Amino acid sequence: MSEQTFCINADRLMRRLKSLGEIGALEGGGVSRLALTDSDKKGRDLVVSWMKQLGLSVSIDPIGNVIATLKGKQDLPCIMMGSHIDTVSTGGLFDGNLGVLAGLEVIETLIDLNITPERPVAVGFFTNEEGSRFAPDMMGSAVFSKTLSLQTALETVGIDGASVGDELQRIGYQGTAEFPNIKQDIAAYLELHIEQGPVLDEQNIEIGVVEGVQGISWQEFKLTGVSNHAGTTPMQYRQDAGLVAAKVTAFVNELALSMAPNQLATVGALELKPNLINVVSNFALFTVDLRNPDEAELQKAEAALAKYISEQVKAHDLQVEKKVLARFQPVHFNPELVNRIEKVANSNNFSTLRLFSGAGHDAQMFAPHCSTAMIFVPSYKGISHNINEYTSPEQVSNGANILLQTVLELTSHHTAH
Amino acid sequence: MSEQTFCINADRLMRRLKSLGEIGALEGGGVSRLALTDSDKKGRDLVVSWMKQLGLSVSIDPIGNVIATLKGKQDLPCIMMGSHIDTVSTGGLFDGNLGVLAGLEVIETLIDLNITPERPVAVGFFTNEEGSRFAPDMMGSAVFSKTLSLQTALETVGIDGASVGDELQRIGYQGTAEFPNIKQDIAAYLELHIEQGPVLDEQNIEIGVVEGVQGISWQEFKLTGVSNHAGTTPMQYRQDAGLVAAKVTAFVNELALSMAPNQLATVGALELKPNLINVVSNFALFTVDLRNPDEAELQKAEAALAKYISEQVKAHDLQVEKKVLARFQPVHFNPELVNRIEKVANSNNFSTLRLFSGAGHDAQMFAPHCSTAMIFVPSYKGISHNINEYTSPEQVSNGANILLQTVLELTSHHTAH
Repeated sequence: MSEQTFCINADRLMRRLKSLGEIGALEGGGVSRLALTDSDKKGRDLVVSWMKQLGLSVSIDPIGNVIATLKGKQDLPCIMMGSHIDTVSTGGLFDGNLGVLAGLEVIETLIDLNITPERPVAVGFFTNEEGSRFAPDMMGSAVFSKTLSLQTALETVGIDGASVGDELQRIGYQGTAEFPNIKQDIAAYLELHIEQGPVLDEQNIEIGVVEGVQGISWQEFKLTGVSNHAGTTPMQYRQDAGLVAAKVTAFVNELALSMAPNQLATVGALELKPNLINVVSNFALFTVDLRNPDEAELQKAEAALAKYISEQVKAHDLQVEKKVLARFQPVHFNPELVNRIEKVANSNNFSTLRLFSGAGHDAQMFAPHCSTAMIFVPSYKGISHNINEYTSPEQVSNGANILLQTVLELTSHHTAH
Repeated sequence: MSEQTFCINADRLMRRLKSLGEIGALEGGGVSRLALTDSDKKGRDLVVSWMKQLGLSVSIDPIGNVIATLKGKQDLPCIMMGSHIDTVSTGGLFDGNLGVLAGLEVIETLIDLNITPERPVAVGFFTNEEGSRFAPDMMGSAVFSKTLSLQTALETVGIDGASVGDELQRIGYQGTAEFPNIKQDIAAYLELHIEQGPVLDEQNIEIGVVEGVQGISWQEFKLTGVSNHAGTTPMQYRQDAGLVAAKVTAFVNELALSMAPNQLATVGALELKPNLINVVSNFALFTVDLRNPDEAELQKAEAALAKYISEQVKAHDLQVEKKVLARFQPVHFNPELVNRIEKVANSNNFSTLRLFSGAGHDAQMFAPHCSTAMIFVPSYKGISHNINEYTSPEQVSNGANILLQTVLELTSHHTAH
């Protein structure tokens, strides 16, 4: 019997996505389960109850990551699937949750089919992937992969003044499981996720084969000028911080277009002071988000931005302060695993597109240490971090089936690398 | 004896400016006396006490304008000086207050010199010129000149929920004096004011001869796009409201520079939503302040802006809503009176520059009805509506002396027109 004939139970997966989405549900759809809140605790409890119903061994580590494992025939490095179940404050039902519940569905399908895999198969959810309540994002997987120290993570204070450590204890999710040595203990990490972008939806592609994660450069600029009367100050005497913020916004857009199609540039946050109709701004605080899958290109964009701001600040006699808010180099997933996913999808007659993830994901914490890849399914109009986030049951099922087929391939051999 | 030899008492004028500045004084200098607050009442009480000490007849009208009059030899139309004593929430000691207290100083100088003018000489302060608490600004002079109905003004509710009528009654400044027929009752209106711009200070000019007030066009634009993930949304799929707001900001600046030197353009207020570093803005609310002393030029600027926004909204697939917040045509002061001020200043060996006022002033309410003009003195670095607003005692004295000389010329003849 060919492995390709096995299928997940799409109804069961959709039911679980909906049940989990009822916890922290918002009016009009969507969900709010910020990390380590009461809603997050309820969501965790529900998923853990499902894990236990399947007889999986469930471990919780000191940063609250939860891993459920199905034993394999041999005690070999495991195949791990996972993602997160925390959400942004007005999130959707699919972001993160899909990767966790599809992983659980893959394991339940194995159990239903009476398949004992060669090696253990695990599914996990990682604490505070979104970073909406506590910075940085991908916190749980960063600690799991020893990219971030446990102590630093536990001491992190969130937007409401509570610390990660206190909140983990409060909701009862500070466990004692040891962190693994990923290189030795995990053969491969697979994450199914919605694209959160419009490309697959616009091009009507069923499966996104993710080659890696773009490099991300987040900078904040504070420009200081002089506030003056808009009606009495000739243009040449102005030191208009708001004008330069606007010029930079337009510049980075032109820059991204000139480096098409891979360079992205966004000024999403901007604050002017005194922010009055008839006063020239003496203050502008704004962010620049640059992304590129190629580190050299990303550095080129950063350099062009730095040069432009420096020229403008001089021309308009402003002061500037720059703060680097985040900087991640591009992550490249394992080419063999990427190829394997593409082959599995194509042999299932799904249309595929290779692409880079624009958003950060837990998978990028695994990539340096073990064979890692991601599978994307379309997001309707690319809408995400929004109550209108939507992926159809068929698209959800397609993604989960590719996850299943890939896990079956990886577990049917003694060496998964 | 030549009239030019008469001088105001500069020390007395500076003392009064400082005393009035102590009411509502802010730490670090500056003053806060928003219209019809307790501080405004105390300021009014102090100025009225000075008016009464000089034996002037003081009238208060139903919108709270206070006019003090020195009798003339004949019951002819009066020469009126005036301005306002309300301030913005973080204002200086000179804006408005100078015009009122210099007018009072001119009258006290006439009294000191035992000069009974041919015709009455009056000084007034007009309610809520700033408009910081109640919109519109120049409210008292607008009602005085019948540009705005008394009832509309009294029913105006301010930023704190109180109405002009209630607040006038509460502080005891709703009088019963009849509004004049300006055409018949006022021969000329003169207002001494700080420039509130940097031109006189930068060019080291002593007296600004004000030819009129620029036309003002205030528009608010609300752009609606789609919020999307900054890392996953290709540039060509974006409907970025913040980007278009920035492009418009840069465009109006270029527009003003291309129409130099008279066109001014400012985007002072801007709000983005969701205002997050990694989300493309689906909402931008911003204002555009356009000013020009020439109505045709101002209309040209408005048309260029409308065309640009329309093109950009189409190119970026946004929705736009426009609101006109204010629109004043340019005001031209009486050329003979303007010439007379210039001649007086030059014969006093002061350097002069003709200029248009960029800010609105009570004088513009008088201009359609009687011979009107303004005298400007320098503002240090053009700083105004700011606790660091500054005009030196010598500059204050220069302006008050030109006001005195002009009043003397106007009152030494039977016909002032």
